[in-house]
Amino acid sequence: MSKTSVLRTALTGSAITRFMGAHSALSAKLAEEAGFEAVWASGLEISAARALPDANILSMAECLEAAAEIAAAVDIPVLADCDSGFGGVGNVAHMVRSYESRGLAGVCIEDKQFPKMNSFVEGNQDLAPVGDFAAKITAAKEARTDEDFVVVARIEAFIAGAGLDEALRRAAVYETAGADALLIHSKRGTPEEVYSFRAVYQGKLPVIVVPTTYPQVTSGELGEHGFGGVIYANQGLRASITAMRSVLAQIGGDGSTYGVEDSIATLKEVFALQNVDELLTRQQRHDELTTAYSALA
Amino acid sequence: MSKTSVLRTALTGSAITRFMGAHSALSAKLAEEAGFEAVWASGLEISAARALPDANILSMAECLEAAAEIAAAVDIPVLADCDSGFGGVGNVAHMVRSYESRGLAGVCIEDKQFPKMNSFVEGNQDLAPVGDFAAKITAAKEARTDEDFVVVARIEAFIAGAGLDEALRRAAVYETAGADALLIHSKRGTPEEVYSFRAVYQGKLPVIVVPTTYPQVTSGELGEHGFGGVIYANQGLRASITAMRSVLAQIGGDGSTYGVEDSIATLKEVFALQNVDELLTRQQRHDELTTAYSALA
Amino acid sequence: MSKTSVLRTALTGSAITRFMGAHSALSAKLAEEAGFEAVWASGLEISAARALPDANILSMAECLEAAAEIAAAVDIPVLADCDSGFGGVGNVAHMVRSYESRGLAGVCIEDKQFPKMNSFVEGNQDLAPVGDFAAKITAAKEARTDEDFVVVARIEAFIAGAGLDEALRRAAVYETAGADALLIHSKRGTPEEVYSFRAVYQGKLPVIVVPTTYPQVTSGELGEHGFGGVIYANQGLRASITAMRSVLAQIGGDGSTYGVEDSIATLKEVFALQNVDELLTRQQRHDELTTAYSALA
Amino acid sequence: MSKTSVLRTALTGSAITRFMGAHSALSAKLAEEAGFEAVWASGLEISAARALPDANILSMAECLEAAAEIAAAVDIPVLADCDSGFGGVGNVAHMVRSYESRGLAGVCIEDKQFPKMNSFVEGNQDLAPVGDFAAKITAAKEARTDEDFVVVARIEAFIAGAGLDEALRRAAVYETAGADALLIHSKRGTPEEVYSFRAVYQGKLPVIVVPTTYPQVTSGELGEHGFGGVIYANQGLRASITAMRSVLAQIGGDGSTYGVEDSIATLKEVFALQNVDELLTRQQRHDELTTAYSALA
Repeated sequence: MSKTSVLRTALTGSAITRFMGAHSALSAKLAEEAGFEAVWASGLEISAARALPDANILSMAECLEAAAEIAAAVDIPVLADCDSGFGGVGNVAHMVRSYESRGLAGVCIEDKQFPKMNSFVEGNQDLAPVGDFAAKITAAKEARTDEDFVVVARIEAFIAGAGLDEALRRAAVYETAGADALLIHSKRGTPEEVYSFRAVYQGKLPVIVVPTTYPQVTSGELGEHGFGGVIYANQGLRASITAMRSVLAQIGGDGSTYGVEDSIATLKEVFALQNVDELLTRQQRHDELTTAYSALA
Repeated sequence: MSKTSVLRTALTGSAITRFMGAHSALSAKLAEEAGFEAVWASGLEISAARALPDANILSMAECLEAAAEIAAAVDIPVLADCDSGFGGVGNVAHMVRSYESRGLAGVCIEDKQFPKMNSFVEGNQDLAPVGDFAAKITAAKEARTDEDFVVVARIEAFIAGAGLDEALRRAAVYETAGADALLIHSKRGTPEEVYSFRAVYQGKLPVIVVPTTYPQVTSGELGEHGFGGVIYANQGLRASITAMRSVLAQIGGDGSTYGVEDSIATLKEVFALQNVDELLTRQQRHDELTTAYSALA
Repeated sequence: MSKTSVLRTALTGSAITRFMGAHSALSAKLAEEAGFEAVWASGLEISAARALPDANILSMAECLEAAAEIAAAVDIPVLADCDSGFGGVGNVAHMVRSYESRGLAGVCIEDKQFPKMNSFVEGNQDLAPVGDFAAKITAAKEARTDEDFVVVARIEAFIAGAGLDEALRRAAVYETAGADALLIHSKRGTPEEVYSFRAVYQGKLPVIVVPTTYPQVTSGELGEHGFGGVIYANQGLRASITAMRSVLAQIGGDGSTYGVEDSIATLKEVFALQNVDELLTRQQRHDELTTAYSALA
Repeated sequence: MSKTSVLRTALTGSAITRFMGAHSALSAKLAEEAGFEAVWASGLEISAARALPDANILSMAECLEAAAEIAAAVDIPVLADCDSGFGGVGNVAHMVRSYESRGLAGVCIEDKQFPKMNSFVEGNQDLAPVGDFAAKITAAKEARTDEDFVVVARIEAFIAGAGLDEALRRAAVYETAGADALLIHSKRGTPEEVYSFRAVYQGKLPVIVVPTTYPQVTSGELGEHGFGGVIYANQGLRASITAMRSVLAQIGGDGSTYGVEDSIATLKEVFALQNVDELLTRQQRHDELTTAYSALA
């Protein structure tokens, strides 16, 4: 089964699909290893890894490259965070063709302006006009060649302070426009906003949430409330920052790495994540074949 | 003072220069923040971040791009790990011009074959012929346009099991060939090999070590033994692996991120590393100027 | 003298500066060889080489990479066509830092919306609000680190059908905002529009034109009318299309390349443009040095 | 039918398959338009477009990116010139996975050293040991996931002056190793070498030739001699060089583009190659859908 089919099936299945955020092939492998069903190629993580704001400073080609590296590293499907679609309708169509051809299982676009600003930053969070954004959803659907490629419409009405009615109004139009799933975003400290949406939304699309600011909610609870997916959008990167900061400070203070050796991965673990054994096996087989073929000649 | 001058001066100064390994702009910023004098754009870290073996699977363009992103993110100088030089003498010259033009302060090349294998992996560690490698050092020096751009010759004699005499023999030839510094590598559990080299080497070049397998040694001790630089080549990445693994496992187990919130960086910390405030300030100034210029028109 | 200084000086000099469009390192070398003073890293040419519309389908990273390859190949300065600046003010600042660091001598941004549409295509040619665009010019100037880096403000008032007064109004505001030069664009079949602008414009900035649709005008005439620069924005690429089309058709028809051999460059010419001799000389020197250093060891 | 199947079928069909060299998406589209059955992503063309020697100065990632852009632009299959495989067996496996995932229909690797030198340049043309190269062919076959992905083994025995027996010996071993086709290369002024090979070779693989230095031979004659493919490896680029050189010189001399207008493609032709109409149609449909969806909301 293709990764696009796996993702499509998962989102409509009985169990909630858990996406773990990633910013690199390595972090995606760790997500797969930890048992998550899917990876979120996170715009926040990818831009933070480059030390640039999550505000479309990285251009489409760079986001695509990062997402493609992530997709190439894992067997589980990867959903790409594509901000507001990187421009106009021509950009959206080019984006879908590009992401699909690079092995992504789907894309998620949000109904904000270009350039967007991260939803948790105080800044311009103006919504895109509903009709314009919905038409982009249709363009995304029409641009794909694989019927199972997933197009998620992310609703930023709560982020923009526009309220539940606006969120529902948009959900209905995006569903008409052909969205495969909805992502309802909120920056509240509790899940009340997304619960209110889920309770009233009558459409047929799976609904995804991103509980960054309401971390107390469990995937089990979200499943019981009827959500189809949950994205842990940035915790892996944030864990890495704290760990690197701590370890680097200790190395600087100690003047050696002796004190940190027990709290960091061994070289052997690193090599395993790099598939070094596969390369050594291939080299070994190569040496044998070289001998055999030399004898033939 | 240019970054190349800063690096050149530091290596010949009285205090040992401490390089922290990095694989991304973000990890380089953390190294700078922690007070290290320089960054090592680590081949092991960069390939591991891509989940590929440290064996020239990543090609020069990809290593260059990663190193350039690192260099663009920090004010301290960055020394790029360039493996065995990516091929023949034409590759070395192209490499130096490319790395210099992308803001690197120097490159380090090692006297092994192409494709190389990470020095800590059991595999082909054959040395390059001394004359061929030395001539590449000269080519590297002749290809640079900035006199201060640093070319480090890395001696793998100990790694290859070739012994002290071979290491010293190579040191002398590389110095004649124009190397700006030497890196003497060892995979022993103690610094005895590198100490023996440093004690006998009579040349004028600063000598750098990489105490990955002898972590107990301090930078102070290394300085007292006469070394000019120490590279902590991969600990940051290794810290990030352990942290991400632990946090992802806990999120998977808990079904929520609540339990990890206290052990991961806050969003505010992430935004700071992304220079979001600079963008918001620029946007604010832009809004003011827009108003002012509109009034003019 | 740096390339930025060369360009700045040329634009304000007594002779008109002739820019030849390029889409690749190779075409830029041909422009330099033909004696043009500068190269225009043309958005139309670069997007056409990718077989994509000149409408911001290629993202900033791809335009930058193409422009950087062009700049690396020639000794004359290169001015990069940066469309409408790739987004908001944050994108403009990031763009300037990126293009400057990659060896470009300057950038040109036009007062249209993002995504832009090529000026000769019937489509959305709406102008950007004057204050917003002028503030981007200021941001571009503030983001550069080399004082001589050139920021050209391109006025699309004639393209948008907004007339001479609007063009002049914008020229004045962009000059106040810090533009180093103006580009006044027109799609008329004669130079009357740009002549009218030049005759009335009282500011101090050099003014550049792009006579794609009024090809009869000579650089001499433009110089006499007081223009500082002329851009031949796409003729090289257009020549290559016609030639390739013709030669490919003949090869297909003949079933061989015999009939086209006299009308295409020899392999020797190709090798010269690739600097193969430099590589062979370097290899020869390398072989000699290898022998010499081997004898030392 | 997938592009890999199309290529595989074509090579074993009754008619000779004609490959036209390309260095860009644009030149590939012209090849397709001219009726060629397949495209050759030419190492010489791609490196020449970058003004760099055809000697592995461009690294794998850059060759891959160029080939992928070519493949994305056309509906006919593209065979990628992969030099000697970019390194060791690990590189070959990574190369195959990378090229296959980016839409190439096949790769061609030649039995020379890394870094290679263009076969028409006087320089190192040493052959790779037959067993080592054959084992790389097997590795390439084992690394693909699509059974139809084509692996061509290019024999450089004639280029290296090693003669017919060596060429035949290698052909037999490469066939045993799993090659899908052979490319027999020659730099003679007549086809006698390749004819001698084709006459004696008894294996089952299709044989491809590159008549750069024996242009008088027709595809019909090659077909009659039993060849499966013919590659016109660089004529398109060479045509573009002559045309650009001529047109640029005339523009410089005339001081205007007036005199060249009749010999260069019109803007309308350029726009057609960029698929501008498709974008305008999409924009038109977008505007209509935007209106319709706005009415819904």
